[in-house]
Amino acid sequence: MFKEIFENLRQVRPLVHCITNYVTVVDVANAVLACGASPIMADDSGEVEEITSICTSLVINIGTLSKRTVPSMLLAGKQANALSHPVVLDPVGVGASAFRTQTAFDLLNNVRFSVIRGNSSEIKTLLRQDASTQGVDADIKDSIHEDNIDQYVALAQEVSKRYHAIVAITGAIDIVADDNQAYIIRNGHPLMSKITGSGCMLSGILGGFIGANPANILTAVAAGVATMGLSGEIAHEKMLQFDGGTSTYRTFLIDAISNMNETILKRGVRIELR
Amino acid sequence: MFKEIFENLRQVRPLVHCITNYVTVVDVANAVLACGASPIMADDSGEVEEITSICTSLVINIGTLSKRTVPSMLLAGKQANALSHPVVLDPVGVGASAFRTQTAFDLLNNVRFSVIRGNSSEIKTLLRQDASTQGVDADIKDSIHEDNIDQYVALAQEVSKRYHAIVAITGAIDIVADDNQAYIIRNGHPLMSKITGSGCMLSGILGGFIGANPANILTAVAAGVATMGLSGEIAHEKMLQFDGGTSTYRTFLIDAISNMNETILKRGVRIELR
Amino acid sequence: MFKEIFENLRQVRPLVHCITNYVTVVDVANAVLACGASPIMADDSGEVEEITSICTSLVINIGTLSKRTVPSMLLAGKQANALSHPVVLDPVGVGASAFRTQTAFDLLNNVRFSVIRGNSSEIKTLLRQDASTQGVDADIKDSIHEDNIDQYVALAQEVSKRYHAIVAITGAIDIVADDNQAYIIRNGHPLMSKITGSGCMLSGILGGFIGANPANILTAVAAGVATMGLSGEIAHEKMLQFDGGTSTYRTFLIDAISNMNETILKRGVRIELR
Repeated sequence: MFKEIFENLRQVRPLVHCITNYVTVVDVANAVLACGASPIMADDSGEVEEITSICTSLVINIGTLSKRTVPSMLLAGKQANALSHPVVLDPVGVGASAFRTQTAFDLLNNVRFSVIRGNSSEIKTLLRQDASTQGVDADIKDSIHEDNIDQYVALAQEVSKRYHAIVAITGAIDIVADDNQAYIIRNGHPLMSKITGSGCMLSGILGGFIGANPANILTAVAAGVATMGLSGEIAHEKMLQFDGGTSTYRTFLIDAISNMNETILKRGVRIELR
Repeated sequence: MFKEIFENLRQVRPLVHCITNYVTVVDVANAVLACGASPIMADDSGEVEEITSICTSLVINIGTLSKRTVPSMLLAGKQANALSHPVVLDPVGVGASAFRTQTAFDLLNNVRFSVIRGNSSEIKTLLRQDASTQGVDADIKDSIHEDNIDQYVALAQEVSKRYHAIVAITGAIDIVADDNQAYIIRNGHPLMSKITGSGCMLSGILGGFIGANPANILTAVAAGVATMGLSGEIAHEKMLQFDGGTSTYRTFLIDAISNMNETILKRGVRIELR
Repeated sequence: MFKEIFENLRQVRPLVHCITNYVTVVDVANAVLACGASPIMADDSGEVEEITSICTSLVINIGTLSKRTVPSMLLAGKQANALSHPVVLDPVGVGASAFRTQTAFDLLNNVRFSVIRGNSSEIKTLLRQDASTQGVDADIKDSIHEDNIDQYVALAQEVSKRYHAIVAITGAIDIVADDNQAYIIRNGHPLMSKITGSGCMLSGILGGFIGANPANILTAVAAGVATMGLSGEIAHEKMLQFDGGTSTYRTFLIDAISNMNETILKRGVRIELR
């Protein structure tokens, strides 16, 4: 099912405008390159509209948010909408501060997002503002497991309905949903939470996948999420070979993204459509 | 002596708020994760008090200082003090510019730090303002060796007395002191100065160690400093196996932190209490 | 021809002030260290003149430009000029937005640069403002190959004449020129464009090479460009041994820079003087 997605990625080589946090930005740029797209990071209000105009898609990530970049996010988002470029929102740490929560809702009220990707706590906050966001990781009581998948599919679909976006909730189990279907993806590895940036990298990659596949966003997002999850598994196996630790794992994770294609993904993906 | 320190780290899994420079921030985040804590980077004055409130400890690092973040550092520091969260100061490059020196003293005069960690030139500057800080590395004439340890222990203890903080001076030999005792730690490797961020990573890690051990800060800081030094040695051995260079070294350094525990540390640490 | 260049680098251990983008800054810092120099990143207008004063050279990189840092670039550049420190300009993405283009010309009109390094699209823009800059990568129609080298040598020399600087155009083939001679360097590997920051790292390294060799800038820049290109080849060979991907490649690239010396470079360089 992912053959066309990857073919388009190779053919379009989308240019992805990222307004993202300074913690993981270098890994996001390298992950976007690894998946076959090309990143450009720019966040000054004096240039974001022009930069977005020459790009294929836009990724807005609210980690290390600052008053300086919020207006840039809004300007870029509106410009991307005007040009019908797909836009990804990564609401990092929404709920952890009023500033992040307010900014997330300002963005959602003023920009039309094609994709919203977050952990379960973040996505909950977008709906009810009462989830517990403990920093940038999902709260333990919000973790997705086999017994509560239905509840999280319903959450994803409710958020999808409200914001007219594909919603990706990532964690031990990943959910990619629009308002009436949902992919459940069971790839990934717990070590992904022992490095910074696996979520941010995924959001960057999704900018590439949907930039090359604007007519098929649900499948493109599922392919991107599965690519990241399977890369996380491949990285773990390779890390064991080299008797490594978390930084070796990070290296091999981006390596695996750079070596991913439809054949490898088809062999390793564990995906279900509900 | 470090068993309880590591046990607390695993049990508490402290959340460390870092206001740190954008050069080494990704390595700091990964090092904090590697040691078993969880980082959150946030530096906007609009959210730092809230972010600090949900965290266990705070790390303030003045590398790539900007006028925008100085007020954030003060706000977060005061809030951490109000909540009795331990706070680490890393006075990167203090003495290299009036702006850095002034900011360091403003912080020291307005925030109560549990730990101050720097190289010998930086720590000297905190006391006398006449040390020669050449950029962000210690000046060669400030290097600690067997013949002048006593002098640097006295320096650390004088700074400790003045600011009521545990003081860690790191270099070829590390000193961790309060006003009447001092650990001398002889771990580490010269390659640590051939990568950026080993000091910043250590300060981040100390945020984790003391966040989990607020009642035992001197020992916790010694454990953190020893963890970093021994990891530097382990990384060097592994780098040689792979015929690598400085970037491989950086990878293996963080790997070693992620694999560290009381057993490995006990076997490799060279520590002396004076 | 590069023996003296490396000897000076080892002896001077230049301190390089970098005002650079936050995407690749950690790799720039590590690359500068790897080549034997020492980096200091500082971009606040309140300290850049002082920081530049204690350094050997200055590197200005306009990626992730912001209104906050443009005045800092001008202040630092003028101060470096006043002290006769060599200055490198990396006009990342010039032409991609009016803000970047305007800033590049403001810098060129107010600061005397010793070296300008960019890809072919960026260097074209500095001359004619009509090149197509697609984000931060060179446009495909601006790529340098054996059939159009003369044309790019002429471009480099015209830019060199206009701005009284050594000009380095890097790509599949690299050109390093002053107004009447040009080195053609045929080292490098296509994977260098699959990671972020190879251009930024090179500009940082050039700050080290010319800081240690201010009397011999053309040769120093050629040595720096050749070091980067050959390191890109060595990294590729090693990556194949480990069956790696782009992130392993990035690690081995910096490793190779850290292991480079006149002997290795002499053996592997493919350089021609026209």
